[in-house]
Amino acid sequence: MNEMSTQTISNHVQQALEAMKNRVIQHVFFVACGGSSALMYPSKYVMDREAKTIRSDLFSSNEFIYRNPQALDEKSLVILCSLSGTTPETVEAAKFARSKGALTVSLTNVGDSPLAQASDYPVVFAWGEGTDPAESNASMMYQLVFGLLHHKESNDKFNSYVSSLSLLESIFSKAWNQFKPNAKEFAESYKKEKVIYTMASGSNFGPAYALSICYFLEMQWIHSAAIHAGEYFHGPFEILDKDVPFFIILGLDETRPMEERALEFTKRYGHRIVVLDAKQFDLEGIDEGILGYVAAMVISRVTRLYAMELAAARNHPLTTRRYMWKVEY
Amino acid sequence: MNEMSTQTISNHVQQALEAMKNRVIQHVFFVACGGSSALMYPSKYVMDREAKTIRSDLFSSNEFIYRNPQALDEKSLVILCSLSGTTPETVEAAKFARSKGALTVSLTNVGDSPLAQASDYPVVFAWGEGTDPAESNASMMYQLVFGLLHHKESNDKFNSYVSSLSLLESIFSKAWNQFKPNAKEFAESYKKEKVIYTMASGSNFGPAYALSICYFLEMQWIHSAAIHAGEYFHGPFEILDKDVPFFIILGLDETRPMEERALEFTKRYGHRIVVLDAKQFDLEGIDEGILGYVAAMVISRVTRLYAMELAAARNHPLTTRRYMWKVEY
Repeated sequence: MNEMSTQTISNHVQQALEAMKNRVIQHVFFVACGGSSALMYPSKYVMDREAKTIRSDLFSSNEFIYRNPQALDEKSLVILCSLSGTTPETVEAAKFARSKGALTVSLTNVGDSPLAQASDYPVVFAWGEGTDPAESNASMMYQLVFGLLHHKESNDKFNSYVSSLSLLESIFSKAWNQFKPNAKEFAESYKKEKVIYTMASGSNFGPAYALSICYFLEMQWIHSAAIHAGEYFHGPFEILDKDVPFFIILGLDETRPMEERALEFTKRYGHRIVVLDAKQFDLEGIDEGILGYVAAMVISRVTRLYAMELAAARNHPLTTRRYMWKVEY
Repeated sequence: MNEMSTQTISNHVQQALEAMKNRVIQHVFFVACGGSSALMYPSKYVMDREAKTIRSDLFSSNEFIYRNPQALDEKSLVILCSLSGTTPETVEAAKFARSKGALTVSLTNVGDSPLAQASDYPVVFAWGEGTDPAESNASMMYQLVFGLLHHKESNDKFNSYVSSLSLLESIFSKAWNQFKPNAKEFAESYKKEKVIYTMASGSNFGPAYALSICYFLEMQWIHSAAIHAGEYFHGPFEILDKDVPFFIILGLDETRPMEERALEFTKRYGHRIVVLDAKQFDLEGIDEGILGYVAAMVISRVTRLYAMELAAARNHPLTTRRYMWKVEY
């Protein structure tokens, strides 16, 4: 790692990586809820593809606690995330992981939040319009995961990723402007739909899951399920009909042929299809070896644009809730 | 393992277990599609909770191939399943796993099927009305997984499970008769619904997933998603309204508090709730330590009963398809 490549890494991430250097790490647990959990799917994908000796699992926070995996011990790294740092299940999960001797690293937007306090190493990320995607939660995840693989297994994609950091702002902003008309068109055309399925595979199943459970179910009260593009042909595709809407994501990772196959079939029998294809992104300057990983980040951001336009067209702001933060649960 | 406890294990499983004895096994991959994949979720749960040194992952067959996990090597055990043994992705996955030097064990109903031929150790299971649940695919999964843990890590739940085998037929048949009226009532009441969500956690997320993707989406063309009971409060619960139907499963494993919490909340704001509670099963004779695991098997069988009654009430036989086995895909 040269001087230039370190200057854009988060200080918090650097501290966490230093701590990892001094420990044996055999297993990584990705632990969060809802959108913060969806955010971690691409990192699980990275670990599966890249990690030679370190194994990993991804669990919703309470599932992690109740399941109580045997693999969780002092040789574990547990990465947690909560935007506000107050998600009770995730705070509990951090305490639980520490009680087992694991190293805990928590991503949050609030540096003195309960989650930050319950963890060994808090990593504060930037959030909201106008912030640099290099400092987003998704970027912090990759910094941590590629950093871990770099230090423990000499994986060279950390350097590729660090070199990409300064390019992300421009890439994201180009994609945002490029897809804005498509998002508007989608919103107008789909604003009266009662159900919209999402579909993807590999690292992109994370964004597809978030689009379904956070944007459609939670923020728009539109019926939805995230369907895995490979599982599609073993059950879910029977729901397809001319008038059943599918939002299909095509990424750039190794599982793309599954997404393409699902799209091709859906086109044959369905007439209500939205396609978000990462091939249309301008990813110039990003190393070939991490293109699919970076594309998953951009996809995630662009799906938010689609949700924003849909919310506007439906007069149903993304902030509308009937239960969340309003009633006891 | 004493003489008595071995007499009811499948010969095929015994052969596979013998092969495992002679190998180092560090990682188990559960690989299948659709309902056969859902069937494996409880075994992943068993591995997470019980395995001291062996790690595991569960992937849809093509996801497994394209993701190409680094952990897949000659120290891997890959367990696959396909009822007919002809699922192309799963046959390919078996070949792929063998090309990496992994030990492959395949569950199928057809002993000379392509999947059986592509695998090191085929395990033939019984299927259909009137067959003994001790010889079902779910039972073969547990025989393999508990057997592996017994031989490699001296886990004593293998003996508990083997002792249970002779009890399963009576347990399943009691549950079937007991829940038949509930299933009929469900069918009458829900036959006109356009969407039904399913919900569970832990080992029971498998049956909830199968109920959603195989029975509702595939066989009944009813909109559906399987919602994880812990994830529910971080997005999906916002879709809940008086008239939105939820099929909630309560199992007996350690994650039950999540399912109970989800049910309690749903009852407060929803009026269309079906509850399948494993506490109502008569599981007498089953060892305490495997109660939750066995309950997941029974739940899976009973959900089929609900689907059968729904199909009858809707005049939409479970065998109806528009694409599967009928068109190219």
